[in-house]
Amino acid sequence: MKNLYRNTLIVLVLLALSSLIPDILFTDRTSGRIFVAVSDGIVAAGLIFLLISFSKKLSKINRQIQLADSGSFTTEFPEKIHDELDMLTLKLSKLFKDINKYDRLRAKNVAKSGKAFASISMNISEAVILADFEENTAILNPAAQKIWNLETRSFPLDIVVKHAQNIEFNKFLERVAGSGEEKAEVSVYFP
Amino acid sequence: MKNLYRNTLIVLVLLALSSLIPDILFTDRTSGRIFVAVSDGIVAAGLIFLLISFSKKLSKINRQIQLADSGSFTTEFPEKIHDELDMLTLKLSKLFKDINKYDRLRAKNVAKSGKAFASISMNISEAVILADFEENTAILNPAAQKIWNLETRSFPLDIVVKHAQNIEFNKFLERVAGSGEEKAEVSVYFP
Repeated sequence: MKNLYRNTLIVLVLLALSSLIPDILFTDRTSGRIFVAVSDGIVAAGLIFLLISFSKKLSKINRQIQLADSGSFTTEFPEKIHDELDMLTLKLSKLFKDINKYDRLRAKNVAKSGKAFASISMNISEAVILADFEENTAILNPAAQKIWNLETRSFPLDIVVKHAQNIEFNKFLERVAGSGEEKAEVSVYFP
Repeated sequence: MKNLYRNTLIVLVLLALSSLIPDILFTDRTSGRIFVAVSDGIVAAGLIFLLISFSKKLSKINRQIQLADSGSFTTEFPEKIHDELDMLTLKLSKLFKDINKYDRLRAKNVAKSGKAFASISMNISEAVILADFEENTAILNPAAQKIWNLETRSFPLDIVVKHAQNIEFNKFLERVAGSGEEKAEVSVYFP
């Protein structure tokens, strides 16, 4: 019964159409009138069922999407699939489950390479400055802090690069960002 | 007209119910019969409209979800909102747009920390071995390749740690993974 709504609508259409032609279906006028009354009653009942069921399930789906938009991909699998909206809920739940899984994988990858970078930069004796142009930060590893004798780990990048003594360093950073140059002997001064 | 389906269903219910009682609404029998015929005709037409519109839009939404599940979050914004399913398409498109945006942000973060790790490990003169327990790989940076005089950059981790000469190295790795210990003097042999 996956297409309950469609099937109900088809039956109701046929009933409504047949009650247009009682004279063709019944020779007896009373039988015709009874048939029309019964079929109209069934049509009304069917319509009320559709109205209630459709509104109820649709608002549930809307709630599910709204929750997902706020970041929590709830996966409420319907117990039984009766109609098209149950099917839709099922598909959405499957989709959200996949998104959740994919998201965890991504988060793990971020954590992994973040951890790799952190542990390497914490432990080596060479100075490392991590320059993030977007975030406007220059982050020093312990070795760099030791070499420049600095207590602060993080500097606003613009303050560093705009300093008069750092013209060469700034040019080097621009080359790194532009052409991917990775090696140069430049001095840097932390204000 | 955001609730076109609901409103249509309500009107059809009222029409179907009123054609149950033509004798109460009309004193004249012919008028009553004409009313019943007209209202049944409208009900049939309304039902056919619902059937076609509902099936068409629902299959469009299902296609949208299916595409999303295969990884492409299409965002087809409906031009005009007439009914509940248009509204649903709109909400889904908004959601998929947000997911896309969030996904790009995540991908950027992965790329960022991956690049930071790569550029630091490529350029330092200290040897770095990146051990990935899940992927079973030990990746060497150029300095490590030079020190151990190896042409290969990547080794299966298990082959390295299970080697008889690497008992100490394996213990060290276990301590790193277990307690987060980060420093030790251990030798390692690459088979």
